[in-house]
Amino acid sequence: MDMQDLGRRAKAASVVLARATTTQKNQALLAIADALDAHAEALLAENQIDLDAAHVNGLTDSLLDRMNLNGRLAGITDDVRKVAELPDPVGMQYDAKVLPNGLRAGRRRTPIGVIGVIYEARPNVTVDVIALTLKSGNAVILRGGKEILRSNIALVSVIRAALTAGGFDAIIPPDAILYIEDTDRRYIDEMLKLHAYIDMIIPRGGAALHKLCRENSTIPVITGGIGVCHAYIDDTANLDDALNIVFNGKTQRPSVCNTLDTVLIHEGMAAAFLPALVGRLGAAGVTFKAEPKAWAALGDLGAGAVQAAGEGDFDIEWMALILGVKLVSGMDEALDHIRAHGTGHSEVIVTATDAHADRFVNEVDASAVFVNASTRFNDGGQLGLGAEIAVSTQKLHARGPMGLEELTTYKWVVIGDGHVRE
Amino acid sequence: MDMQDLGRRAKAASVVLARATTTQKNQALLAIADALDAHAEALLAENQIDLDAAHVNGLTDSLLDRMNLNGRLAGITDDVRKVAELPDPVGMQYDAKVLPNGLRAGRRRTPIGVIGVIYEARPNVTVDVIALTLKSGNAVILRGGKEILRSNIALVSVIRAALTAGGFDAIIPPDAILYIEDTDRRYIDEMLKLHAYIDMIIPRGGAALHKLCRENSTIPVITGGIGVCHAYIDDTANLDDALNIVFNGKTQRPSVCNTLDTVLIHEGMAAAFLPALVGRLGAAGVTFKAEPKAWAALGDLGAGAVQAAGEGDFDIEWMALILGVKLVSGMDEALDHIRAHGTGHSEVIVTATDAHADRFVNEVDASAVFVNASTRFNDGGQLGLGAEIAVSTQKLHARGPMGLEELTTYKWVVIGDGHVRE
Repeated sequence: MDMQDLGRRAKAASVVLARATTTQKNQALLAIADALDAHAEALLAENQIDLDAAHVNGLTDSLLDRMNLNGRLAGITDDVRKVAELPDPVGMQYDAKVLPNGLRAGRRRTPIGVIGVIYEARPNVTVDVIALTLKSGNAVILRGGKEILRSNIALVSVIRAALTAGGFDAIIPPDAILYIEDTDRRYIDEMLKLHAYIDMIIPRGGAALHKLCRENSTIPVITGGIGVCHAYIDDTANLDDALNIVFNGKTQRPSVCNTLDTVLIHEGMAAAFLPALVGRLGAAGVTFKAEPKAWAALGDLGAGAVQAAGEGDFDIEWMALILGVKLVSGMDEALDHIRAHGTGHSEVIVTATDAHADRFVNEVDASAVFVNASTRFNDGGQLGLGAEIAVSTQKLHARGPMGLEELTTYKWVVIGDGHVRE
Repeated sequence: MDMQDLGRRAKAASVVLARATTTQKNQALLAIADALDAHAEALLAENQIDLDAAHVNGLTDSLLDRMNLNGRLAGITDDVRKVAELPDPVGMQYDAKVLPNGLRAGRRRTPIGVIGVIYEARPNVTVDVIALTLKSGNAVILRGGKEILRSNIALVSVIRAALTAGGFDAIIPPDAILYIEDTDRRYIDEMLKLHAYIDMIIPRGGAALHKLCRENSTIPVITGGIGVCHAYIDDTANLDDALNIVFNGKTQRPSVCNTLDTVLIHEGMAAAFLPALVGRLGAAGVTFKAEPKAWAALGDLGAGAVQAAGEGDFDIEWMALILGVKLVSGMDEALDHIRAHGTGHSEVIVTATDAHADRFVNEVDASAVFVNASTRFNDGGQLGLGAEIAVSTQKLHARGPMGLEELTTYKWVVIGDGHVRE
């Protein structure tokens, strides 16, 4: 594959796409959704070939489940139609001012240009990313997991054909959507050096992928998606709320990044909270990693479900029904623990005291800080962004869920009347 | 030098500084300004030692001028006091909403954390950067040009001592301002890998420094400051405005990044505009690089001041009284030229036609696009930001001049009442 050529094509397409109107982009999205529906049978057949191969290769059930489009394609297509309904951030003007010399200045949102997305074996991501990048006026170069290559080639082919068949070529060139079909990893390395053409890299995957991108990319990288998340149960917490929030944060969908990994309990609440915690979460299959004070306080409570926390256990994103438990002497120790072990993703305090909530919100450095609410709400859909392309845990450009607006940049527009600088 | 230790110290200081109030930060800035005034004599003496050494080493007059604090220190100190007067972006809340489930969500501006700044032999930058990072609640690690090491060590020492003497240590720890005193370039390489402690790298210097950072940093880098800037003189331009804007853009301060490098002239305007251009700018010492059509149109006009443009001349940021001149057949050719040769910094159209202005503004991809105004206004002070730490030409996080707000990130703050996700 000639990655330079791929980059050049995407860049040229991005210049054209940036001029598309909201109506044109929405019509294209609807045409894409219709085409995905119309080709559902063929798409599922290609997906089945990927699934069969993955089965033979012994992939886990959870990976096979993520790969599977069967029963999900209609939902994915509906999501494309929902993106068509979202407001278009491109062209939005803000910070408008008339300067003392009469110059009229302001910022105007524009597409970023070309986005590179590297992701795992999840074909739904292929369609999500295409819908969001198209709507925000950006070209995209995709590189998905090798296990779903056939599914992805089929999806991208249907989508590109829909643009041509719908007569959108001149406005939304098919080259605005390019897929790296050779799964040799050296093309990822080459992609990460294409700063002449690609403006932003979004890795969606585990810590190793983020590290690879951070260490090798000459293009700005949005790192994120790794969440070692904490709940701090304050000495004034409502215990029902605390139990519900921890239960929800741990068990509602254990395999995602905004789930809880550790509960920090004010030691004054241990006697009241620990039995309820171990009882309710234990019954849902959760096992516990307890630091010594929590271990001692638990006594016989947890029986087989509780283990002593080992070295490093508080730095693990469990992605499973495992919860670290630690007693703390108060807010200071809770904040210290979060600073030492958090990944800046999602943190929550359960408290009935406004001053405690304020201090926690002020001092915790994370993409989202919650008061009396589940960390599971750290999600673009849940926070009202309509959709998300990723959750950023770095601090530049975007933090937390990234929706359409976070896929734009801005330019200053300055209008004068022959103004020159003195 | 132990760069890991330096990073750790800056990070720890940043946690404390992030909690400082606006009043505390402003008082510290005023104390710093007073201390710089009080130690002016000693600072100038150290600066003179740097200047003497640079003179012996044969540095150019323009470099010596940039290094010189003599006659400038009071202005630099005044700028610190002006930063104290600027609004503090930290803590500002925006995008507040009540979600359908009753959750209250919004974004709150926070400091970024630790900023790394690598710059050339300009001691004024040392003080500017310290004032802006302190006001925005960020710790900073500075690495200035080796030619001004003594000046910088003296400045940083006075500033850190002012924090201690003023009793600010507990709120604004002196370790929030750290200087890399060993000028061995390997410490730059080590600095660029300190992603565990540094959140953002701002290079201020030439293309080579930006390239070094982009290719070696594992920390997000704000690239910018390289401007190959164009004026397009439309077929409906007011010729007086056009002449003033080109004159101002080229001659007002030729050595900075927002000056003009090329003027693109609608061929219908050549006969009227070229003689005035060559006459007025030529009289100010400007020489011209003309492409063949412009060369032919100029005829004997320019005499010795006009040369034929060579291969690559339109890709050079001249930083000198040299101006590329090209005739174009219209807007399409002007936009193509800017896409091919621009660096995304500052571009201007001179026109009396709104539709032409709109098309230019829409299609030119640059940090600032001007209509009938000098590109010299692409500056934080001129655009109402109060100050600037750098001008970004990349597209993530900040574009164009970066003031205090661009030195912040945000966190989502989400307040519930026991809310959990269904």
